[in-house]
Amino acid sequence: MPADSMSPELYNCRFLKAARREPVDTTPVWIMRQAGRYLPEYMAVRSKVSFIELCKRPDLAAEVTLTARERLGVDAAILFADLLPILQPMGLDLEYAKGEGPVIHNPLRTPSHLPRFHEVEDVGCLGYVFDAVKLIRRQLPANIPLLGFAGAPFTLASYAIEGGGSKNYALTKTWMYTDPGAWRSLMETLARSLIRYLRAQIDHGCQAVQLFDSWAGCLGPDDYREFVLPYTKMVLDGLPPDVPVINFLTGNPALLPLLRAAGGQVIGLDWRVNLKEAWASIGHDVAVQGNLDPVTLYADLATIRRRTKAVLDAAEGRPGHIFNLGHGVFPDLKPENVIALVEMVHEMGQRR
Amino acid sequence: MPADSMSPELYNCRFLKAARREPVDTTPVWIMRQAGRYLPEYMAVRSKVSFIELCKRPDLAAEVTLTARERLGVDAAILFADLLPILQPMGLDLEYAKGEGPVIHNPLRTPSHLPRFHEVEDVGCLGYVFDAVKLIRRQLPANIPLLGFAGAPFTLASYAIEGGGSKNYALTKTWMYTDPGAWRSLMETLARSLIRYLRAQIDHGCQAVQLFDSWAGCLGPDDYREFVLPYTKMVLDGLPPDVPVINFLTGNPALLPLLRAAGGQVIGLDWRVNLKEAWASIGHDVAVQGNLDPVTLYADLATIRRRTKAVLDAAEGRPGHIFNLGHGVFPDLKPENVIALVEMVHEMGQRR
Repeated sequence: MPADSMSPELYNCRFLKAARREPVDTTPVWIMRQAGRYLPEYMAVRSKVSFIELCKRPDLAAEVTLTARERLGVDAAILFADLLPILQPMGLDLEYAKGEGPVIHNPLRTPSHLPRFHEVEDVGCLGYVFDAVKLIRRQLPANIPLLGFAGAPFTLASYAIEGGGSKNYALTKTWMYTDPGAWRSLMETLARSLIRYLRAQIDHGCQAVQLFDSWAGCLGPDDYREFVLPYTKMVLDGLPPDVPVINFLTGNPALLPLLRAAGGQVIGLDWRVNLKEAWASIGHDVAVQGNLDPVTLYADLATIRRRTKAVLDAAEGRPGHIFNLGHGVFPDLKPENVIALVEMVHEMGQRR
Repeated sequence: MPADSMSPELYNCRFLKAARREPVDTTPVWIMRQAGRYLPEYMAVRSKVSFIELCKRPDLAAEVTLTARERLGVDAAILFADLLPILQPMGLDLEYAKGEGPVIHNPLRTPSHLPRFHEVEDVGCLGYVFDAVKLIRRQLPANIPLLGFAGAPFTLASYAIEGGGSKNYALTKTWMYTDPGAWRSLMETLARSLIRYLRAQIDHGCQAVQLFDSWAGCLGPDDYREFVLPYTKMVLDGLPPDVPVINFLTGNPALLPLLRAAGGQVIGLDWRVNLKEAWASIGHDVAVQGNLDPVTLYADLATIRRRTKAVLDAAEGRPGHIFNLGHGVFPDLKPENVIALVEMVHEMGQRR
């Protein structure tokens, strides 16, 4: 949703002000994977349908999105969806095997498989996502933004090539190292599809989007610069400039300056860095999101409080900090600890 | 083996000169896990005994160590051994389950289990390691150093607590975050044991040692500084100052300045950094080891050559570079590619 079609209440909400690096009353916070298995309300819905059905049922996706937002009292809702369904209309046979995570039955093992990978020209095939966006936006409080999201080109390419999770990304990197032309073609196909997908999320009611490069940390800076940055940048350049994008990568702090160079009004930090040092290194002319180690939430409240304060202190009360974990919340965490964290951020984040 | 008891030939070998940052004729190279499953000669021995038997049979450990060194033509041999057997005399019931990696049947799940964890006072129980060291040293060429090694305190603590591999190190970090006193006790117990273990390796014939903190990359800088650095430093301070130590950590470039602060004549770099930038950031008054992405070795020889040259170029011909992969070699790599890599380093690493 472009800025000029938003209500003043939404435009001036805590999250969007922070994303624009404007001063706020207290630090905004949301939690990656906030509508997840740690939440009994989520499990109640999930017990009735499979994961992929939940993704494809706008009414249920809306329900878990809204319930999590409300239960936690966070400053943003994030669309319940998954990174991978976009690969289905591109020609990949995706299955969420019970307890094993996603499996692609016909992965693009080598460049020779590229001809059966198709750009998403018409996002209508992903209409269930936009229907969920519309439903959620309609029911959200007027001052709460809805975040859309997608996997970044590299992370989606790795899934498409490896066929699922990977330890060393051997097939992906071998392709990249040995056939740069086919790699470019693959990444451009993904980037163009992602632009359409994210634009449609925005058009249907998202006020900001996050790009997840969950696996790019397996690369060194030279490889990231050559093989990833141009395509992430292509996606970000293809989005409306007044809609904030959180550009998030996990697993390699040495890539942060390049992540910043790729674009995004907000840079998402994982917990492997000190937020103060990381922010200084990428420049204070960009907002940051993060970065509590999610393992902290297994501890007692005093420990959670101390470590939450350390993250807030590292931000030095500077406008442009959105609090989050450095990674998605774990399924076996106590929901009351997550709720307590949100309260602590709101309390301790007040402008001092 | 302290410097004054070495032959001049050994003292002035390529590897040790580079570790002291003295000029060398060409860049020395060895390969992490060079005596490993990718090598048919290793598999031939391994087919006759289990992994742990191989570790505990000095004659066989010596055989695979020497064969790999010779086959590859590398500038150092590294003792065939494993990180974990030191935990056995400390009270942990370790098993290498077939195809599943190591399992500890009685892990130290919480601080309450600490009383059953015992310091290694007498390293005699690890005599098979030192017997292998003696056997190998006796058969190695006079100009080839033998490297010993051990896991760093954090990596061993994680194994002891988690009982095997881990995704999030939840138990380890929860212990660390919530009971710093018990954590200190655990880490000191490990550090004191490691000093005795590494000193004995040196006394029996190792010319240098590598400390592997394979899992410390799961920590941010603040946690590393408080909970890990003091104990890694304790180990390094406890070793003879004239024996080079390679201090290696993988998974988080943001920790490199702290790794350097912990000590070691050589800092081991994984492939997630550009070697030139990393060396500049930790200072040129320390040697570095690394850092080719091991996935490179799946590619064709021209690609291997180009990427090997990039690593050598990043070192700028500066004295103090030891070439290695950024991680252990994979079991399904072609041995001829590893051999070709060693030749390329020796050829292209010649002082220009």
